[in-house]
Amino acid sequence: MSLLIVGTTALDSIKTPRAEQPRLLGGSGSFAAVAASPFTRVHLVGVVGQDFPARYLRLYRRHGIDLAALNRAPGPTFHWSGEYGANMNERRTLHTELGVLEHFSPELPPAHRRLPYVLLANIAPEIQLRVLDQMQHPRFVMADTMDLWLNIAMPALRKLLRRVDALVLNEGEARQLAGEDNLIAALGRLHRFGPRFVIVKKGEHGAILSGPSGLFLAPAFPVGRLVDPTGAGDSFAGALMGYVASRGGVPEKSLRAAILHGSAAASICCEGFGLRKLAGISRTDIVRRVRELRRITAW
Amino acid sequence: MSLLIVGTTALDSIKTPRAEQPRLLGGSGSFAAVAASPFTRVHLVGVVGQDFPARYLRLYRRHGIDLAALNRAPGPTFHWSGEYGANMNERRTLHTELGVLEHFSPELPPAHRRLPYVLLANIAPEIQLRVLDQMQHPRFVMADTMDLWLNIAMPALRKLLRRVDALVLNEGEARQLAGEDNLIAALGRLHRFGPRFVIVKKGEHGAILSGPSGLFLAPAFPVGRLVDPTGAGDSFAGALMGYVASRGGVPEKSLRAAILHGSAAASICCEGFGLRKLAGISRTDIVRRVRELRRITAW
Repeated sequence: MSLLIVGTTALDSIKTPRAEQPRLLGGSGSFAAVAASPFTRVHLVGVVGQDFPARYLRLYRRHGIDLAALNRAPGPTFHWSGEYGANMNERRTLHTELGVLEHFSPELPPAHRRLPYVLLANIAPEIQLRVLDQMQHPRFVMADTMDLWLNIAMPALRKLLRRVDALVLNEGEARQLAGEDNLIAALGRLHRFGPRFVIVKKGEHGAILSGPSGLFLAPAFPVGRLVDPTGAGDSFAGALMGYVASRGGVPEKSLRAAILHGSAAASICCEGFGLRKLAGISRTDIVRRVRELRRITAW
Repeated sequence: MSLLIVGTTALDSIKTPRAEQPRLLGGSGSFAAVAASPFTRVHLVGVVGQDFPARYLRLYRRHGIDLAALNRAPGPTFHWSGEYGANMNERRTLHTELGVLEHFSPELPPAHRRLPYVLLANIAPEIQLRVLDQMQHPRFVMADTMDLWLNIAMPALRKLLRRVDALVLNEGEARQLAGEDNLIAALGRLHRFGPRFVIVKKGEHGAILSGPSGLFLAPAFPVGRLVDPTGAGDSFAGALMGYVASRGGVPEKSLRAAILHGSAAASICCEGFGLRKLAGISRTDIVRRVRELRRITAW
């Protein structure tokens, strides 16, 4: 079944200890949409500027991503540039230019409003809310977020969290939002914000799902050579929701396997700059890593 | 089958953000021996001073630990005091008094030399070597270590590593010893030091085994209320080797399950000060957590 994804569509200029790459295709919406595309038909909601390269539109289309709700607005595309530290764990934002993202207020075509699965990828909670307001009885809604919104947009984020089925966020954000250092204790508190399911991304340490049937600990696929971690979390969320949408039915039942597919996609993402590696793979490549994960976690 | 454990037997004075406890039973040998004792007969090699409380000797004995090679020497018992930071991740040593440990040079009784399973728990590599030199064809030898020895005793540690089947160490130590930030890449390098099996402890993030048949990713048992992490790594190694010894046969076959039993024991250890919680549990309590781990990692 089809999946609606709203998120940023950006140009990323990335510096790692080994290399530097300007104006790559990036943004939470791009990573999530490409990662979800091997599993299901994706309808991307976003905005790009007049400088957005045609080859990136072609890349979306090659992945069967519907661009009917991808606006083209006058002005520059959202541009982010950042630099990773020696061990790739620390990221420093060098420059952010919001461009057309600043006045983005998505208006969904009628057919989009009836889509059953919704991923509110990382973008301002006000925009996530604006999309959610237009949806008619979605079956399963997952929201991603980041520390920035915890710091500057808590009222909107709280409002959003009351209305989503699942929240995905990273370890530090989970601790910050819960106001609790112990991650297991923090999970309990996060449910009080609204979501039945909370998924904490722990990078190379895997992920934890907390839901009505308790905890689920998911491994990360081991990456021997990290090229660029940008977009790994977005790819995780994208493949996860793509898998859930492809299975249909009750998401509770597919969520554990979906997280493994998310882990696999995230690991592939990290092995290339920007979307370079992830954009070249098929569903089979992801499933192969999920099988390998099963092999190396069995006992 | 029986397990020989050499390690420190200490008095620990521990301060956490919530409480302070003086002169608890501690040391790598104590934690490892108590954690292994539900699985197998343990023969502890170590040294205590004249101030070592009789109730701690009774605690060892209650766990069926053979103390024939636990020396009592003139002088004070090794005493360590440390303080944990707000989130329990950082530990600061306040004071160390080596006492009788300073001139400890273990001499094994003849029967000990023929024991099949050997855990060289964390202690100076020279002492680990001295014990290993006296063993006659042990079936499986695992060594634990710590950053201190990487910094001050590398020649002895290198010599030791050429002669052990398995090395267990934490994440930071693995990176330091391998000279490689990426943990997966570091694992490959660690085998070159000698051990066929390398087990990296990642605390709340579980553990990774690297061996002849590839990687194994093990989860940590989720701990909702961390009281005192002292000895968790030693308990992990102790229960792991206790399980291996209890299974007998080829350690390759029991190592994955053994690591899960180690994880379970470590999680119990963290829930009480010093050995307080771990000393009160049975094999059934550990097995219950291993079953729970299976439930929360199944997909």
